[in-house]
Amino acid sequence: MRLRARILLLVTLAIAAAALADDGMWMPQQIPALGDELKKLGLQIDPAQFGDLTGFPMGAVIQVAGCSASFVSPDGLVATNHHCVYGALQYNATPQNDIVRNGFLARTMKDEIQASPDTRIYVTTAIEDVTKQILCGDRCPSGRGAPERSGIHMGSGTHMGSSGDAARAKLITRRRREMIDACEKPGGVRCAVASFFEGAQYLKITEMEIRDVRLVYAPPLGIGNFGDEPDNWMWPRHTGDFGFYRAYVGRDGKTADFSAENVPYHPKHWLKISTRDLDEGDLVMLAGYPGVTSRHKTAAEVETAEQFGIPTGLRYRTILVDVLRERGKNDRAIALKNASRIAGLENYQKKFIGTLEAFKRAGIVEAKKKEEARIRETLDPRLGEAYDVATAELGKILGDEHRTLQRDTLFPWLYASSPMLTQADRLYRLSIERTKPDLDRAEDYRERNRKRLTASITRARRNIDPGSDRAGLRLFLLEATKLPADQRIPGLPATEQEVDALLDRIYASTKIGDAETEKAMFEETTEQLLARKDSMIAFAVSLRPFADQLDTAENARSGAMSRIRPVLLEALRAERGGKLYPDANSTLRVGFGVVKGYSPRNAVFYKPQTTIEGVVEKETGEEPFNSPKRLLEIAGRGWFGTYADPDLKTLPVAFISTNVVTNGQSGSASINAWGELCGLAYDSNWEGVGSDYMVEETIARTIHVDSRYMLWVMDAIDGAHNVLRELGIEPQF
Amino acid sequence: MRLRARILLLVTLAIAAAALADDGMWMPQQIPALGDELKKLGLQIDPAQFGDLTGFPMGAVIQVAGCSASFVSPDGLVATNHHCVYGALQYNATPQNDIVRNGFLARTMKDEIQASPDTRIYVTTAIEDVTKQILCGDRCPSGRGAPERSGIHMGSGTHMGSSGDAARAKLITRRRREMIDACEKPGGVRCAVASFFEGAQYLKITEMEIRDVRLVYAPPLGIGNFGDEPDNWMWPRHTGDFGFYRAYVGRDGKTADFSAENVPYHPKHWLKISTRDLDEGDLVMLAGYPGVTSRHKTAAEVETAEQFGIPTGLRYRTILVDVLRERGKNDRAIALKNASRIAGLENYQKKFIGTLEAFKRAGIVEAKKKEEARIRETLDPRLGEAYDVATAELGKILGDEHRTLQRDTLFPWLYASSPMLTQADRLYRLSIERTKPDLDRAEDYRERNRKRLTASITRARRNIDPGSDRAGLRLFLLEATKLPADQRIPGLPATEQEVDALLDRIYASTKIGDAETEKAMFEETTEQLLARKDSMIAFAVSLRPFADQLDTAENARSGAMSRIRPVLLEALRAERGGKLYPDANSTLRVGFGVVKGYSPRNAVFYKPQTTIEGVVEKETGEEPFNSPKRLLEIAGRGWFGTYADPDLKTLPVAFISTNVVTNGQSGSASINAWGELCGLAYDSNWEGVGSDYMVEETIARTIHVDSRYMLWVMDAIDGAHNVLRELGIEPQF
Repeated sequence: MRLRARILLLVTLAIAAAALADDGMWMPQQIPALGDELKKLGLQIDPAQFGDLTGFPMGAVIQVAGCSASFVSPDGLVATNHHCVYGALQYNATPQNDIVRNGFLARTMKDEIQASPDTRIYVTTAIEDVTKQILCGDRCPSGRGAPERSGIHMGSGTHMGSSGDAARAKLITRRRREMIDACEKPGGVRCAVASFFEGAQYLKITEMEIRDVRLVYAPPLGIGNFGDEPDNWMWPRHTGDFGFYRAYVGRDGKTADFSAENVPYHPKHWLKISTRDLDEGDLVMLAGYPGVTSRHKTAAEVETAEQFGIPTGLRYRTILVDVLRERGKNDRAIALKNASRIAGLENYQKKFIGTLEAFKRAGIVEAKKKEEARIRETLDPRLGEAYDVATAELGKILGDEHRTLQRDTLFPWLYASSPMLTQADRLYRLSIERTKPDLDRAEDYRERNRKRLTASITRARRNIDPGSDRAGLRLFLLEATKLPADQRIPGLPATEQEVDALLDRIYASTKIGDAETEKAMFEETTEQLLARKDSMIAFAVSLRPFADQLDTAENARSGAMSRIRPVLLEALRAERGGKLYPDANSTLRVGFGVVKGYSPRNAVFYKPQTTIEGVVEKETGEEPFNSPKRLLEIAGRGWFGTYADPDLKTLPVAFISTNVVTNGQSGSASINAWGELCGLAYDSNWEGVGSDYMVEETIARTIHVDSRYMLWVMDAIDGAHNVLRELGIEPQF
Repeated sequence: MRLRARILLLVTLAIAAAALADDGMWMPQQIPALGDELKKLGLQIDPAQFGDLTGFPMGAVIQVAGCSASFVSPDGLVATNHHCVYGALQYNATPQNDIVRNGFLARTMKDEIQASPDTRIYVTTAIEDVTKQILCGDRCPSGRGAPERSGIHMGSGTHMGSSGDAARAKLITRRRREMIDACEKPGGVRCAVASFFEGAQYLKITEMEIRDVRLVYAPPLGIGNFGDEPDNWMWPRHTGDFGFYRAYVGRDGKTADFSAENVPYHPKHWLKISTRDLDEGDLVMLAGYPGVTSRHKTAAEVETAEQFGIPTGLRYRTILVDVLRERGKNDRAIALKNASRIAGLENYQKKFIGTLEAFKRAGIVEAKKKEEARIRETLDPRLGEAYDVATAELGKILGDEHRTLQRDTLFPWLYASSPMLTQADRLYRLSIERTKPDLDRAEDYRERNRKRLTASITRARRNIDPGSDRAGLRLFLLEATKLPADQRIPGLPATEQEVDALLDRIYASTKIGDAETEKAMFEETTEQLLARKDSMIAFAVSLRPFADQLDTAENARSGAMSRIRPVLLEALRAERGGKLYPDANSTLRVGFGVVKGYSPRNAVFYKPQTTIEGVVEKETGEEPFNSPKRLLEIAGRGWFGTYADPDLKTLPVAFISTNVVTNGQSGSASINAWGELCGLAYDSNWEGVGSDYMVEETIARTIHVDSRYMLWVMDAIDGAHNVLRELGIEPQF
């Protein structure tokens, strides 16, 4: 309890002057300080409750399968998005029992099936501020400038001297690892030491790891994925994007591997599902685990993103998608192998297009520049010098970065375009890293991540198609031939002819992709591995020195950044009247907003709620707009029981709110003023995809599935009455 | 005055029970009877005024260049759409003075230039009911069933007997022609005997023909055509689709060929341009010349359109557009030659897609079937027998039509795909028709149409590209090879190989497209023409017997229809409580509606007005979203003088109303409650394109440019202060 109290104090200082803050991804501990505002928005429960991570409601908010989720029953029932249970459906589907298409319902607990062997649920159980230990080890002074005094640490680099940025980064990494190892030692937990405000603050996060996760219920694809790609990032939306897992533990209540003997986990807290009316203006809190945002980047950094990073990322994705699509055009087996890679690439393709549109619309670089001018002008003179030094240093780092920007942006795409090269590189590195002490290895190769690495290598192998691999790698080897003379990647071919000759060699005699061979390689020493003279491994080996060189440079840069960024953020915080939340870093956050429509363009208004009529309107009978017949029939009857919205006089399907989301927040609990689950977030709107960099409050929205639609689908369409009753709802259909 | 009075009486009976009628295209003479309704909607002038075609405001509403238009000053200034002055801009543009791109402004009357030699303005000067003369000649009985008794003539076919449908049609045509010739004899006028309610009523329409039409002003392409194809049929819209002509006549006030001596025409009436506020709910009257609608077709006819006519028309357009685009892909000269054909084809392509969508959405065939069942059920028993006979006869005609529907739909596309074949056919027919008495010729070849024919042949020649011609014709010759055995077109090749052999022959030695040759051909006898042994003319000659056969069949069908349709329409009129306007037929009509937004789909609302912010939002700097720099600059200042909308607090650009339009109504005067020109209609919305068949009142809208935007563009952007002053507006910029 001591730690939590300290965090509360610290954060209260940091957000003292918070005014309108509904674009935030607040640390739960920051929420109590926003209480007045939340009360004004209609919050009926005590804001202070949010600060208690093991209390209600935050104790119910968890992570599963890369998504956010929440407990919704005392027996460990977990609500999340359909696209977050999709992998489990896929893993368990067979041609005879196509549960991807038809959905899945376990009518009793006995019928619940293992989601997949590597599905995990993480429940945050503790957060502790460890900034002092990480930054200073045992040598931190307790006076002025110490962590206790301020949410953001000014010039903490002074403790180490700016000359040794690489050493500094290395030391911090080592301290974080030692702390993590100590934390995980008792077992059954996963620990992290997360950096907030880009190195100004470190929090140690302890999560219970639940390894027996089972699939309970998912609606048919024509509901859970209604609209799919054409509707991705789009409002108005009509997807029933929800599904249920259940957490299981050993009979002793402790985390355990999958076993028939296991019993449902009983969480201390769970969210009650709401059947209340939801209207424009109503408060919606969003609790989940946002991945990464870049809202605190400087104008210069955003300009680079706008001018080079995002357009290049977009172009690389586009050429790779085109090649992969072409490969699968006349071969269904290849199309299936490439499907999930293409989906992933396209998701960001679309996001990048929207981000560039948003940048242009909002004039983000100009806005950031103006803000920076304002910051400097109004800055406390005591901070002025440090700020100027930091700015100059950042300018130098960015300048250095620019000199090799094309090369360094391209290089990782050699791996991204060739899963076989990635596989070869991993096996080669594993043979090397394994020989080092665990604390000194690259993170992915540490013992604590061994299972993950194995699973990842196995998963990647399934989708290898050498033809697609070669075609993709060829694209980026050709791109590399076009790099400016002073940015050439050592050892790569210089002409198209040489590229093809290299590819002939690489793909001539590789066994990468062969399960038996890879399994053997997994255990081999570097010497044994090299003795195989595998052509793809040889290529990976040839690239490794340059890859290490880039890693080293990145390490030094990150060491420098952890000195510089806190200074800039402290100034930004001052300019924003003390109101600043840290950029997202996959830790538990809470945002708040209200249900609200918006005008996407001149003369057009999008209402904040869609209804069942919209589903019927979009229906084409073909994927992805193919509702189950039963849905269309029952929708046609026009009677929706108590799930109908009293104002809309029909069944609500989805709603939008002024909350802002990013990747990782899929499945986040949408919590109403009474602390009930009124929906699940599953997407940002198109106009809001620029929010990773900057929130346009008038048009950025989060899309949620309405809890009443979830309940109606379960009740009237799928007859999931057992799940309904567990949620405390008496069936009406 | 006698005639007008009689028409008024007649129409008053016909619409006695009119209730909600804002989807109509009313004959102006019908409007006074709708007075109560119009008063309720806010009409401030006397509804009876609309019945007087030479009075205010209808006397100001005219036709120009296939569009609707209106006089807006006592000196013959004419307001219409930009796309209706586009041809004149194109005709006068030079590489040195690209007025298409830059726009045009005559700062004094002296600077006004001839629109083009064949641009004509038509001013309706008289309408006379001639039903009796046309249907009965001198033998019409004056008792029961005579034209005077009813707006629609029941079973008028009894006067002629149903056996001689072809003879009947021929006789009607002859009487119409004699009447037209007598009417046009004094010169300076163009007459028509138009059929209303598909042969139930005939009105003789006299129009003054103004032959000296000059271009006064058109905004730059980046305003007048802002949005072009991507925005075509779309709301929200931001096009400044307006321009001005001026009518000139001889010093004696009579119509005259273009001459420097001519003087501006002084119309008796003109519309004042409005600067008033326009709000949601405000009355908008629309006066213009709608082309053709099919709202009174039967369920069976609409079903054929939905199942075959429209999808086939869409497919034919699509394959032809694809071939024409391909031809021009790498050859700018060819692309330019095909540009206007492609634009025309694509306009209907898009319209057909929207129409099919609307059919499906509204279930039009089912709705029509239900209406027909209702009609029969509630029909006055006295009419029952005639109705059943007519229905049965129509069924037989449609059955006959179906037997050769594929063939007869395809045949005209041989000509549509090959302008060279069309040209050859015209020259061949001209040589034949010329030898007949004028009254017996096909209409296009009569002396009164000689100038038009010449102009049309000359115009068509300019855009002939033999390669595109052959590629297009090939498509439809190939289609013809696929016709069912019992629908083959005599003389056409049966295989692809034969098609190519035929094409080799046709294009081997034709002089069609050569100006000198065609000029000579124009004067030749059939014998002389055939002696040339021109390969394209030989092909045209070979098709002519079959074309004549189709014409003869169509003639007989139309004769039968003029007996059958009036019976069906009388029954329809009864079912609609006496409220029925005739389908559009290019005569002057008035519709009324109100400014109103709509919901195009679930959770989306389109507001009824767009503003200048929308122009800036769509701006890309590239066609078709490239506003003049000056517009963007002045728009950015945010001050719009008295042109700003007091509620929107910014400059209005376009608005929509519940009026319904079809092709031909471009440039129609949008008239507010005070009889002022508050805008110009220029498009239907996408959701309303099905309105030719059936009006969906909740979503069908007409798009107008707001008069305040017109004035602001003239004032602030183009400095057309002389035009503004002529409109009675004092410049503010």
